[in-house]
Amino acid sequence: MLIKPGKLLSKIEGPQDLKKLDQAQLVRLCEELRQFIVDNVSVYGGHFGASLGVVELTVALHYVFNTPEDQLVWDVGHQAYGHKILTGRRDSFHTNRMYRGISGFPKRKESNYDTFGVGHSSTSISAALGMAMASKYKGDENKQHIAVIGDGALTGGIAFEGLNHAGVSDSNILIVLNDNCMSIDPNVGALKDYLTDITTSKTYNKLKDEVWNLLGKLSHFGKNAQEIVSKIENGIKSTLLSQSNFFESLNLRYFGPVDGHDVDHLVAVLSDLKQIKGPKILHCVTVKGKGYGPAETGNKTTWHAPGTFDKITGEIHKKVHEKPQAPKYQDVFGHTLVELAKENDKIMGITPAMPSGSSMNIMMKEMPDRAFDVGIAEQHAVTFSAGLATQGLIPFCNIYSSFMQRAYDQVVHDVCIQNLPVNFCLDRAGFAGADGPTHHGAYDIAYFRCLPNMIVSAPMNEKELRNLMYTASLPRKEQAFSIRYPRGQGVMPDWRTPFEEVEIGKGRKIKDGEELAILTIGHIGNYAVEVCEKLSSQGIEVAHYDLRFVKPIDEELLHEVFGSYAKVITVEDGCVQGGFGSAVLEFMADNQYQAQVRRLGIPDQIVEHGEQIELHNECSFGPEGIEKAVIELLELVGRPA
Amino acid sequence: MLIKPGKLLSKIEGPQDLKKLDQAQLVRLCEELRQFIVDNVSVYGGHFGASLGVVELTVALHYVFNTPEDQLVWDVGHQAYGHKILTGRRDSFHTNRMYRGISGFPKRKESNYDTFGVGHSSTSISAALGMAMASKYKGDENKQHIAVIGDGALTGGIAFEGLNHAGVSDSNILIVLNDNCMSIDPNVGALKDYLTDITTSKTYNKLKDEVWNLLGKLSHFGKNAQEIVSKIENGIKSTLLSQSNFFESLNLRYFGPVDGHDVDHLVAVLSDLKQIKGPKILHCVTVKGKGYGPAETGNKTTWHAPGTFDKITGEIHKKVHEKPQAPKYQDVFGHTLVELAKENDKIMGITPAMPSGSSMNIMMKEMPDRAFDVGIAEQHAVTFSAGLATQGLIPFCNIYSSFMQRAYDQVVHDVCIQNLPVNFCLDRAGFAGADGPTHHGAYDIAYFRCLPNMIVSAPMNEKELRNLMYTASLPRKEQAFSIRYPRGQGVMPDWRTPFEEVEIGKGRKIKDGEELAILTIGHIGNYAVEVCEKLSSQGIEVAHYDLRFVKPIDEELLHEVFGSYAKVITVEDGCVQGGFGSAVLEFMADNQYQAQVRRLGIPDQIVEHGEQIELHNECSFGPEGIEKAVIELLELVGRPA
Repeated sequence: MLIKPGKLLSKIEGPQDLKKLDQAQLVRLCEELRQFIVDNVSVYGGHFGASLGVVELTVALHYVFNTPEDQLVWDVGHQAYGHKILTGRRDSFHTNRMYRGISGFPKRKESNYDTFGVGHSSTSISAALGMAMASKYKGDENKQHIAVIGDGALTGGIAFEGLNHAGVSDSNILIVLNDNCMSIDPNVGALKDYLTDITTSKTYNKLKDEVWNLLGKLSHFGKNAQEIVSKIENGIKSTLLSQSNFFESLNLRYFGPVDGHDVDHLVAVLSDLKQIKGPKILHCVTVKGKGYGPAETGNKTTWHAPGTFDKITGEIHKKVHEKPQAPKYQDVFGHTLVELAKENDKIMGITPAMPSGSSMNIMMKEMPDRAFDVGIAEQHAVTFSAGLATQGLIPFCNIYSSFMQRAYDQVVHDVCIQNLPVNFCLDRAGFAGADGPTHHGAYDIAYFRCLPNMIVSAPMNEKELRNLMYTASLPRKEQAFSIRYPRGQGVMPDWRTPFEEVEIGKGRKIKDGEELAILTIGHIGNYAVEVCEKLSSQGIEVAHYDLRFVKPIDEELLHEVFGSYAKVITVEDGCVQGGFGSAVLEFMADNQYQAQVRRLGIPDQIVEHGEQIELHNECSFGPEGIEKAVIELLELVGRPA
Repeated sequence: MLIKPGKLLSKIEGPQDLKKLDQAQLVRLCEELRQFIVDNVSVYGGHFGASLGVVELTVALHYVFNTPEDQLVWDVGHQAYGHKILTGRRDSFHTNRMYRGISGFPKRKESNYDTFGVGHSSTSISAALGMAMASKYKGDENKQHIAVIGDGALTGGIAFEGLNHAGVSDSNILIVLNDNCMSIDPNVGALKDYLTDITTSKTYNKLKDEVWNLLGKLSHFGKNAQEIVSKIENGIKSTLLSQSNFFESLNLRYFGPVDGHDVDHLVAVLSDLKQIKGPKILHCVTVKGKGYGPAETGNKTTWHAPGTFDKITGEIHKKVHEKPQAPKYQDVFGHTLVELAKENDKIMGITPAMPSGSSMNIMMKEMPDRAFDVGIAEQHAVTFSAGLATQGLIPFCNIYSSFMQRAYDQVVHDVCIQNLPVNFCLDRAGFAGADGPTHHGAYDIAYFRCLPNMIVSAPMNEKELRNLMYTASLPRKEQAFSIRYPRGQGVMPDWRTPFEEVEIGKGRKIKDGEELAILTIGHIGNYAVEVCEKLSSQGIEVAHYDLRFVKPIDEELLHEVFGSYAKVITVEDGCVQGGFGSAVLEFMADNQYQAQVRRLGIPDQIVEHGEQIELHNECSFGPEGIEKAVIELLELVGRPA
């Protein structure tokens, strides 16, 4: 079903068409754009609230600026649907986030209008500043460089690093702060409180005006008073104005706050700002989900990416299942953490701005003094957890695999070098699905297993996850303990199994076999079970081991494997360079075994978005790929199926 | 030579002895402590300016607070010499930074007073906040948690993430801002300008006082005026006071600036602050190198870690060499970059706060508009470089190997996923020497080679470094290009060789051999040359290949190796798990070669500080270790030497 755009929108093939509109038509265009997003997302799914919140801003930016010559950089990027629709992707928008369809985020390969690819937060200021400094160096004074960043993203450390450089850069950069008090979950932290302060009814600006007015009145009290007033004015000018604002203290000219839904005013303000050289910030106040009632007034987190829904009633479609379903791994994590924490008062939970995505919100609700959302601040989350661990507490720090990349140094420097017992739960490990390459958790096995004092584990199912978490919660004096698991469902509808301690570094044999053994790590092992069953029904007995730990790797088990099987396949939902398979090769070399080993996993290339199974198949480690590898290694090619 | 401490200092075995002193004696103790540091560092070397700058602060902190029960966290930690001397390490201080001696940084294993190990910057707020939240959770209201952080370190993103959380934490944390306008090199950025503004002679505080005084006078002008004044007062209170300060806008109570060299005043202020609950910041102004003339008035960067010097004249000892010496790799980088940039106007240089350490200062001096020091901000440095690359420029972003950990996500997300041609030069790759584990560049091969679109290379000598840099500077549309090299000298006194393009992914054969081949990557290959020559003189011919590239790895060369040699030794100055040796194993498995492979490199443990050669020997990949491995593999053990 192709969604039909409104009359104005149907003629917009790119910003050049947008610029032909009278300014008076922009309100109408915004309505159509908003409707088109509602129509599409309600049917096809995707991010929602964020794009609705910046409809006017998007229209105004492309109306005023000369994109793609002017460089428009979106932070995070899930709010860029309007931008995509206005820049040539209206008619392909229904493929958004689908396999081989357009990306849910800006992407350089997809369009010249997507100046900087994104998915993680807080990078836009640095990227736009690089562009602006390039223009400055080239002597191009007219080119504009605009970073659109949310108040949540602004709390990420790199955003601050960018601000600090921008303030002394003398470059032509405009930072548009899209302030909606939200990231995915409600924004937290001191900066958010500050932004709220200056946007509440008795605004900072109003106050500023009042003070000026009063000073004006004072000057009627005679010469003496005037002198004093003049002194106060100078004093206030140099303090109130130049230092009174967080951003101005960083030498960024601050404008706003303005209503981010008044497209006329936005056009006027942006046109003015275009004439003002140097680094500057425009503070726009927007409402996430604006213009669609249920999203605007309902739960913002729910409407961040609601899935498909009935656009008339606002009812979110829920799949109805006849049989009980396996839970999501994230929920197993969330509930299990609370179960463990009830029995052990040393356990604490930490998430950087992903309470709902990680299901840490369960603990935050039940034990608000023991579970922390620290904002979009992965680095801080890890070092903060290390600080907790020094005091004898047992932190479970939950960070998506791809976001953990942002805290890598903190894991090395603050946890592993100090050998502190911090627990890391890496959600979204392996292919993340529709979010695509920025969110794929492809590298964590490789980048964690090279670190001393780091236990690297992955559960094959819900019971294993619970047991690994239980084991990680038991008192230990040292060693970081990481547990990786994928996005989505497990395999056990009855998942509330009793806790059993797992011996650290011990894998398990799933099945014996004859000539060949499959070694798997994590949830992907269920594919191997499937393959082994299928082959077994054909009389081919293949062994299967679930290693459970990449590090320490189960040497006893591997001695058994290499002592018994001449052919080995390793399977992991992670990069094959340096990953689990390489760890197996290292064992083999160190122990001078000789076997034929084939490693299956994420290849050395950027894999785009799609359903997890689509991507597993594309990369030949879905069930078919594993079976094919077995057949090839056993030299059964050409056998009757 | 054991340095003799002064009379007071000689009696201080720990803070308990310090507390027995009359406050009037503290000035004298500070003098002795300063003298002891001068005496030691002038003879044994080490960091210098930073510790001299915090002598009074260190004494005051331990005098006022109940360490180690109260948690004192030093940021970066090279300023903690005074702290170490006062906390039981006076008599071992002469072993500072030496192999098996005490660490040049705080270290938990070394002392209970070292609450959090450190070496990289900007972590102290997060760590101390973790400790403070633990105390809050435990209901311990009296325990104090103090983070001492420099103005340079404050620009690192994680520091801001910590501030943002601290501001809403309601925890008992005191942040002491040690503001000396320096990190190793002069601090840069908007925040530094801001701090300078509020500490210059017409201080922020003075101004604040003036405004209050004037308002007081105004109230004499009758009732009407009084009302207006009262309104202004309210207005100013809620803006000037609560929002006028960068820190107060983040909800941290701000105190200062105070003179960081007035120990009496510091004791008074800290005693007061101890009584004030909640998150707060004390702004101390200090002078790096304070109290030692040449360091105080001379070049601060030189006196950051001057090596040994004549403490009377201030003359820094320079080694005099009879023969011309090979240059430092960093200087080859610095000069070569300028040579290349002179011929190619697209080349730009980027360093995060290490202009002198990376020798980027050479380009900054010669081409100030093309070389950027972006402050302690590795993340920003990388994404900023990516921004430059989108505009067709050719960035050379120089970051120490261990600091690159802090920009890992930016490398993945902003460079590799987008496949942008950014050049990374990783200085201090491999063992960093006296700085120890926080600074060892142990993991970069493993954490870079798992990334798609990343070229991983390492030069064996100066000529190779120049050629790799030249190759990286040639136009290419895609792929990140990383070049890693160690701290210290190369091997070529005549290093200004003409540029030659290197074929990407091509290694080189150094020497043929018989049964066994040594494969090396980078500078460490020179050890293999030494070993091969020695063995050759004994009639044992061992082959040696310098791979030059870990990725793409030279498959043609490896086919030659595995086709010709049954025994292979890989050598790298990097972790053996997932590193260069593993890449060789992957090739071997993928191509079904069978050979006996021994991997030499940094083992799976935290290796402490020491001279590079000491550490190479400890880890058995110095010349002796390599020779031993050859002998063992060739089963020549027991042969006559």
